[in-house]
Amino acid sequence: MEVDQETNTQRQQRADAARNRERLLAVAEEVFRERGLEASVGEIAERAGVGRATLFRNFPTKQDLIIAVVTARVEEALAEGRAMLESTGDAEILFPFVKSLVGQQIDSRALFEAVGEETFLADERMRRAHAAIIELIDRLIAHDEQLGYVRSGLGAVDMLMLFKGACAVATSMPELGPAALERHLSLVRGAIAAPGRECPLQGTAPTIEDLHGRPASAARLS
Amino acid sequence: MEVDQETNTQRQQRADAARNRERLLAVAEEVFRERGLEASVGEIAERAGVGRATLFRNFPTKQDLIIAVVTARVEEALAEGRAMLESTGDAEILFPFVKSLVGQQIDSRALFEAVGEETFLADERMRRAHAAIIELIDRLIAHDEQLGYVRSGLGAVDMLMLFKGACAVATSMPELGPAALERHLSLVRGAIAAPGRECPLQGTAPTIEDLHGRPASAARLS
Repeated sequence: MEVDQETNTQRQQRADAARNRERLLAVAEEVFRERGLEASVGEIAERAGVGRATLFRNFPTKQDLIIAVVTARVEEALAEGRAMLESTGDAEILFPFVKSLVGQQIDSRALFEAVGEETFLADERMRRAHAAIIELIDRLIAHDEQLGYVRSGLGAVDMLMLFKGACAVATSMPELGPAALERHLSLVRGAIAAPGRECPLQGTAPTIEDLHGRPASAARLS
Repeated sequence: MEVDQETNTQRQQRADAARNRERLLAVAEEVFRERGLEASVGEIAERAGVGRATLFRNFPTKQDLIIAVVTARVEEALAEGRAMLESTGDAEILFPFVKSLVGQQIDSRALFEAVGEETFLADERMRRAHAAIIELIDRLIAHDEQLGYVRSGLGAVDMLMLFKGACAVATSMPELGPAALERHLSLVRGAIAAPGRECPLQGTAPTIEDLHGRPASAARLS
């Protein structure tokens, strides 16, 4: 279905263009998730049902496309975190938000592995997205610290380090499975908890048999 | 210097053979550390001053050589941990031991990245080395738990997950530098601490400027 053709009105053209862009982003995310960042842009255009010219008009380079997908995901995470801040009242937010980020990261491993790469952090759009996440996490920390959920002195980059660690456990020890990731996250919660706050460990400690078991794909959170 | 030649006595031959093996292991570790696991065995033989025949007699495949280097390092870590258990008395052992493992892992990144790979864990020598480390860590946990340093219910694989996370922070966020790794480890200490035990965060939270700063090589612990 080639939709990159002349339409009757400029409004119609704009609507088509926006739809194409949305569709390309959604398909690109799907393709990158399935087949990694090595997937070709040609495959993405084909599955999206648009011409290559349309793809290149929207995203001149593959890196532009990857950055657009990642920043769209970051925008979603920002919206989720801001909504939690507004609606959660006195409930804990920081740990549930970071846990949700870990789950998303694991789902889109190939995509988010790119986020930390030098070439991507050198991109101004990525740096802005990163800065916005950090600013949000600092607000979540302030919220949870004031309510006595987390220890004082935490910073957003502390949370990013713990986040990175949890993602590494999920992707580099996949044989341990999702239960071990939940357990690891309960350790992380203990690391950030306010003194005296109970943070029971989830489940039982994984065993060496779990570790030496059959490797599976990356663990997913329930 | 070709030392792979006939000598006067069998004892001399055995001593030479042992020396060659030791030298090959030391040089292999050095070369892998400098240039990654892609370094050729020819380069290792040359730098060790032994013939390729000697190298292949000792280590028929490159994987045999890598496994020998890794298991030698694991043996050293085991010896260090066991010595700590015997000499430290009532002092804390678990966290200092894991911190030391993180430092060694970062120093020999390419080498230890191989440890988790399926092909290596399928190797019986690697599985035994892994099992010995796990058995030792369980003893360190028991020691520290009895003395009130760490929370109850921890298992060795919990520590391996935290270890993996710390290594990921060091290698995938190198721009943060060693101070941030020390700080991350102080969070890890908080995660395993017995309830009520004070675990102050080291230093200050890294900032977004640290994160967006100039990437360097992997952080090293002081």
